[in-house]
Amino acid sequence: MKLLYPTSLKLDTQSLEGFSVSLYPYDVKTPIPADHRDAEILITWTNSADNLKDAAKQLTNLRWIQSLAAGPNDVLNAGFDTSKITVTTGSGLHDRTVAEHALGLLLNAARRFFEMRDYQLQRKWPAHLGGPQPDRPKGAFTTLRDANVLIWGFGNIAKTLVPHLIGLGAVVRGVARHAGVRNGIEVYAEDKLAELLPSTDALVMILPGSESTRHALNADRLKLLPSHAWIVNVGRGTSVDELALVDALEKGEVGGAALDVFDKEPLPAESPLWTAPNVIVSPHAAGGRPQDAEVLIADNLRRLLAGQTLKNVI
Amino acid sequence: MKLLYPTSLKLDTQSLEGFSVSLYPYDVKTPIPADHRDAEILITWTNSADNLKDAAKQLTNLRWIQSLAAGPNDVLNAGFDTSKITVTTGSGLHDRTVAEHALGLLLNAARRFFEMRDYQLQRKWPAHLGGPQPDRPKGAFTTLRDANVLIWGFGNIAKTLVPHLIGLGAVVRGVARHAGVRNGIEVYAEDKLAELLPSTDALVMILPGSESTRHALNADRLKLLPSHAWIVNVGRGTSVDELALVDALEKGEVGGAALDVFDKEPLPAESPLWTAPNVIVSPHAAGGRPQDAEVLIADNLRRLLAGQTLKNVI
Ligand SMILES: NC(=O)c1ccc[n+]([C@@H]2O[C@H](COP(=O)([O-])OP(=O)(O)OC[C@H]3O[C@@H](n4cnc5c(N)ncnc54)[C@H](OP(=O)(O)O)[C@@H]3O)[C@@H](O)[C@H]2O)c1
Ligand SMILES: NC(=O)c1ccc[n+]([C@@H]2O[C@H](COP(=O)([O-])OP(=O)(O)OC[C@H]3O[C@@H](n4cnc5c(N)ncnc54)[C@H](OP(=O)(O)O)[C@@H]3O)[C@@H](O)[C@H]2O)c1
Repeated sequence: MKLLYPTSLKLDTQSLEGFSVSLYPYDVKTPIPADHRDAEILITWTNSADNLKDAAKQLTNLRWIQSLAAGPNDVLNAGFDTSKITVTTGSGLHDRTVAEHALGLLLNAARRFFEMRDYQLQRKWPAHLGGPQPDRPKGAFTTLRDANVLIWGFGNIAKTLVPHLIGLGAVVRGVARHAGVRNGIEVYAEDKLAELLPSTDALVMILPGSESTRHALNADRLKLLPSHAWIVNVGRGTSVDELALVDALEKGEVGGAALDVFDKEPLPAESPLWTAPNVIVSPHAAGGRPQDAEVLIADNLRRLLAGQTLKNVI
Repeated sequence: MKLLYPTSLKLDTQSLEGFSVSLYPYDVKTPIPADHRDAEILITWTNSADNLKDAAKQLTNLRWIQSLAAGPNDVLNAGFDTSKITVTTGSGLHDRTVAEHALGLLLNAARRFFEMRDYQLQRKWPAHLGGPQPDRPKGAFTTLRDANVLIWGFGNIAKTLVPHLIGLGAVVRGVARHAGVRNGIEVYAEDKLAELLPSTDALVMILPGSESTRHALNADRLKLLPSHAWIVNVGRGTSVDELALVDALEKGEVGGAALDVFDKEPLPAESPLWTAPNVIVSPHAAGGRPQDAEVLIADNLRRLLAGQTLKNVI
């Protein structure tokens, strides 16, 4: 069996040895060479759209694609025959990096580091942001202590983020497709959003990009948030109706938005998000560096060879 | 016995009842009224320099001053007769707020939110900060995971910060006057700094302001840090030689500095810190809101009346 692994990141291929599988490196930005078109397994990471489109046509023996992205929208849009090919995601490889970034964005919002920066660039001391301050005032998001944080999309990244929020004193609830208690956190189904949003100080969106999550946060739901509530999005940009968000920000109907993902990336120069009040633009920087990918690949390789169900099947 | 409490913050005075002590509110920005000059206990919070100078002269019965600041430099500089008056600090009341802010500054530095902001203001996508990135590259401070964090000044705030850093995967060491293991962290005396600084990715300074900490971080010690190392200061500005820091930043000898405290506050418009490379200016915003002050006051009141040693004696 032939496995192609990408040279777009450092992989410790020794950790993939020991199976009856031959391992070959490939370049993710050019078409896969003719003598590798017999590959049965393809590991992808930051492949070009052309590379994937070509692979979808040429790799006729392909059985399994392991993406190292948590949200492999690139692979899903390339035209692979998913009736024959199992696609598995890299969910789990980005938990710590994305959780850290989300935590940073929450603190940036609460502590208003973005506003301090604007003052610094003018050599001005933002006195209103420092010195004696009210402690946890009602109707403001100034700290994670006692803040109500709602995490929408309660998968691997959310579970990694939770202990950090709890440690700082936040009250955490979750929303996912299926209700139930996960990792000690009460997770609700979407039909409960109308009850949850009005008591939310910070809404953290970690939804995958799919038709079912498109504009999940729309004008109606934005209206349910209190006017001081912040929105943090580290999932996919398509899950937020950006125009409705800009409208809510401009009308002061929500407190602010710290966004790492956007409907179109890079965010177009003409987007009103650049200058809408209290927006933090982060350039899809939360993840982007899979950690311990070898462990997932080796485990799934073993499962494939043993005829067992793979991990992270889409 | 008469206790004066400040009206500059909301205190739950019910939690101070039950002792043979009468409680009176006072304004911290004007001289203490003549009929309260017999007070034996003074609680201070954001008092004006004039108020304190006046109190030092007029409150001749004073036995105990409870400051709600962790570093009551204001009280110590007002001319109270400390041979007769016990001064206790508010150390402990700011642990969670300052630790949260320090964590935010560390993430701001590692994730370069300040630089993202500069791009945002120009409607530019900082592509170099997002997308696929190297994972924990040597010679850069990009994440707390596996980062070597050295906390200089290992008191109450440091102990509150530690679990957050450990949770994110940092390797934490401490420096204080006395060596030993505290809360599971190896704390060294200052004579070990020359060994510790070269392997430090982020130096978090939480030192009190005093003659003994003045310019603790000086040119020589800055030279011992690796060129990618960040300095975070949430203690007192006097503990850093600011000119030496600017010099090190301009020469690229250190990675950056996220400063909440300064030698002079507000930071003067002419300070080179505003524009030195990779400086984050935060306007003494870490603490400023004592939490659970009533518990400390009541405990010390009880101790005073019982003839026991007070908590947080300077
Ligand atoms: N910004 C970045 O750099 C970055 C990096 C990595 C990943 N991401 C994004 O983050 C997303 C989540 O990653 P993950 O590893 O945490 O994924 P995951 O473990 O698969 O979890 C996804 C969560 O979303 C929920 N969900 C899916 N469709 C939903 C819907 N229509 N309505 C409500 N909830 C829905 C799932 O609900 P159930 O649990 O009930 O099924 C699950 O809780 C990825 O898909 C990716 O797009 C972004
Ligand atoms: N930015 C803000 O808004 C803000 C808010 C609150 C407090 N602060 C500042 O933070 C400081 C620390 O607060 P804390 O509550 O953590 O204080 P703390 O519990 O009293 O701890 C002070 C620490 O500094 C160490 N230290 C004192 N003098 C030293 C010296 N000359 N050399 C080396 N180490 C020395 C002590 O060492 P030992 O343990 O060995 O004695 C102790 O570990 C306060 O004094 C205040 O100035 C700032």
